Amino acid sequence: MMFLNEISAEFPSAISLAAGRPTDRFFGRLSSRYLADALERYDGWATREGRGLGVNTPLLQYGRTAGDIAELIATQLCLDEGVAASSERTLITSGCQEALALCLPALCPNPGDVVLMRNPTYAGASGAARANSVEIFPIPNATDIVSGIEISIEQLKRSGKRARALYLIPTFDNPTGELMDEPQRKAILSICYRSSIVVLEDNPYGMFRYEGQAVRPMAALDEVGCVIYLSTYSKTLAPALRIGAATLPEKLFDNRAARSALWQELVQRKSFLTLNTGQIAQAMVGGLLLEQNGSLQQWIQPALAWYRSSRDAMLNELQKAFPAMSNELSWNHPSGGFFLAVDLPFRFEAHDVIECAVKHGVLVMPMSFFAQDDSQDYRVRLSFSGVDREKIQIGVRALADYVAQRLGPTRMAGEAVH
Amino acid sequence: MMFLNEISAEFPSAISLAAGRPTDRFFGRLSSRYLADALERYDGWATREGRGLGVNTPLLQYGRTAGDIAELIATQLCLDEGVAASSERTLITSGCQEALALCLPALCPNPGDVVLMRNPTYAGASGAARANSVEIFPIPNATDIVSGIEISIEQLKRSGKRARALYLIPTFDNPTGELMDEPQRKAILSICYRSSIVVLEDNPYGMFRYEGQAVRPMAALDEVGCVIYLSTYSKTLAPALRIGAATLPEKLFDNRAARSALWQELVQRKSFLTLNTGQIAQAMVGGLLLEQNGSLQQWIQPALAWYRSSRDAMLNELQKAFPAMSNELSWNHPSGGFFLAVDLPFRFEAHDVIECAVKHGVLVMPMSFFAQDDSQDYRVRLSFSGVDREKIQIGVRALADYVAQRLGPTRMAGEAVH
Repeated sequence: MMFLNEISAEFPSAISLAAGRPTDRFFGRLSSRYLADALERYDGWATREGRGLGVNTPLLQYGRTAGDIAELIATQLCLDEGVAASSERTLITSGCQEALALCLPALCPNPGDVVLMRNPTYAGASGAARANSVEIFPIPNATDIVSGIEISIEQLKRSGKRARALYLIPTFDNPTGELMDEPQRKAILSICYRSSIVVLEDNPYGMFRYEGQAVRPMAALDEVGCVIYLSTYSKTLAPALRIGAATLPEKLFDNRAARSALWQELVQRKSFLTLNTGQIAQAMVGGLLLEQNGSLQQWIQPALAWYRSSRDAMLNELQKAFPAMSNELSWNHPSGGFFLAVDLPFRFEAHDVIECAVKHGVLVMPMSFFAQDDSQDYRVRLSFSGVDREKIQIGVRALADYVAQRLGPTRMAGEAVH
Repeated sequence: MMFLNEISAEFPSAISLAAGRPTDRFFGRLSSRYLADALERYDGWATREGRGLGVNTPLLQYGRTAGDIAELIATQLCLDEGVAASSERTLITSGCQEALALCLPALCPNPGDVVLMRNPTYAGASGAARANSVEIFPIPNATDIVSGIEISIEQLKRSGKRARALYLIPTFDNPTGELMDEPQRKAILSICYRSSIVVLEDNPYGMFRYEGQAVRPMAALDEVGCVIYLSTYSKTLAPALRIGAATLPEKLFDNRAARSALWQELVQRKSFLTLNTGQIAQAMVGGLLLEQNGSLQQWIQPALAWYRSSRDAMLNELQKAFPAMSNELSWNHPSGGFFLAVDLPFRFEAHDVIECAVKHGVLVMPMSFFAQDDSQDYRVRLSFSGVDREKIQIGVRALADYVAQRLGPTRMAGEAVH
């Protein structure tokens, strides 16, 4: 997180294909007047309907630890993501990052309790684990993800440890952009049920699908209660709201009492972390959801179209910039999300970020930044979400210049880099 | 926290002398329009002046981990509290609770690292310590606080442990309402410097002084860099903003590099806890501080006058309700803050809260809720901040009824309880 923010600040003139932020392009809709109206709309609704904020407690007071707009968030998750959420088990958090900081230590309280994570994975998740002294076991990449998870569980058992949680972004993964298919999801759920492992399904990008059929979230496929579903409004609305949520299953491993106990544990932890999520931002999100009749499908349309064409522009530029290098350099074609992964023919590390920024004016993220070992040293993550098409073009060309320089003149000879 | 919120919700008709919340009476000033104007005022200022939000990063994006309005907060702390704060060492947090959740594990990273706390103390502080597996050592009450701290340090040393931090609310303590004098503060600073103990000085109530000379915060008396100063806008403005701050000393134990290292550690921890504090609320606080020329002295005047007369009303009612019981029942006379402590002639526990609420219609906080042992079982905390004078009157009389019932008819005979 900090690395991302700070390198951007250090090289303000460099084009950033590094930051995974949403586009600023449509923030104009969230003017201060619009936000004030949303706040009032929510406050009026809550008072009239006798729920949430504004009933016994004025909006500006200390609020409920679990949050106040869970009913509206649960509705949105049902409508837009097919997750059968319900307000009494949806905890509102100060961004999804807080949900991670609450869930990881709650699920892995004892020494020897381990969270499984893909390698690479979102640095905020691995960072939250480390900050809470929760051991991470990186799922090996040698086999497919399902076998990788089984191998990990066995390996931990043999060393006297126990996998208690599995962190995944199955839909348009950060940092890889990959989409897990439904059979994979079901197979993983089955393994996790057998081994009493809770899946932390993080789904910030699920609504940004550019083609193909939607794959249902694991929380929607979960019949026995393995999945805590993590959601956020940072991508659909705006990061500055800092509103996320963790939705627990109705029964945890078929056990309602176990779910209630976990809920209590998470609420208590939250009371000692941030007390309650800021109600002004909650009310703004609530008012916006009321205005949109509970769904964000219409709201995100302009951004969805924009990201789709940005992804197309990036794929197109990569094809043009590296026309005949498929044996040395390759990338994936994500069908949604904010990112794609490029495999390079050389190591790319933190100091290479600086060189790339200073000499070529483009910022890219080394995949090693998201990794638990050196297996990702030859990859970078490119983000197409936060910059316009012209900058994508210039940025990819700048990256091609850098690659040409790294490989030396002979390697790139005869190739139309520009 | 949860206990406070939930008992209030469970007995909505009972008069609450339990909750330490600020009065709602003046929240009308913070209308949604006023807040939107404040947000715009800050955004305009930041853009014009080239600082904080709105410069390279639009207000609605991901923000700086350390926060964006530190300059304005530092100015307010200088003007209103005499603390020589400075923006590059003031970390904006999601309420002061997050500052505790960041500082305690950062200061006590190893087994055997211990935080000293008063007994009783603010339950959010002890809860944050426990949630982060930081061991608490309650300062013994047998002697004065200064000797108590010295004894604690020695006792820990003998058991192979080490006091690394000391949590204090020296000005109008929660839960006791007590004010530490300047010689005590200086003596504690001197001990802490000798023993390399960081003081976490929490000062939510310092601006609510009803009489007497101001005693300078420990951070203002600190010449060598022992004190991290924790501040909040929950009491001066509104809890729902969830804006607090931790201000580090310029040098930590005379060492600038040590302070920088601690700063980096706190910022990194924050990036894995809440990423950044919500910028909408930050900008609202920023805009309000700009409007008020940097100080909240004028802003808090109505609340200050209100709390003073509420405190007077409570002291007056206590005197009337318990006219000649000073040998059995006594209370202190705080010169500021939100609370006073009543010593009872009988044990008062969680189940007594329920009885008091159900049968007498008044909620009070057992002091044992803030304690690390059974030494506080014969005390309650009364709050005069959140209810009007009429309710204070009824509430104290209801408490007197309860006390009369507990003591039995003979004990209260001849005494004009009403």
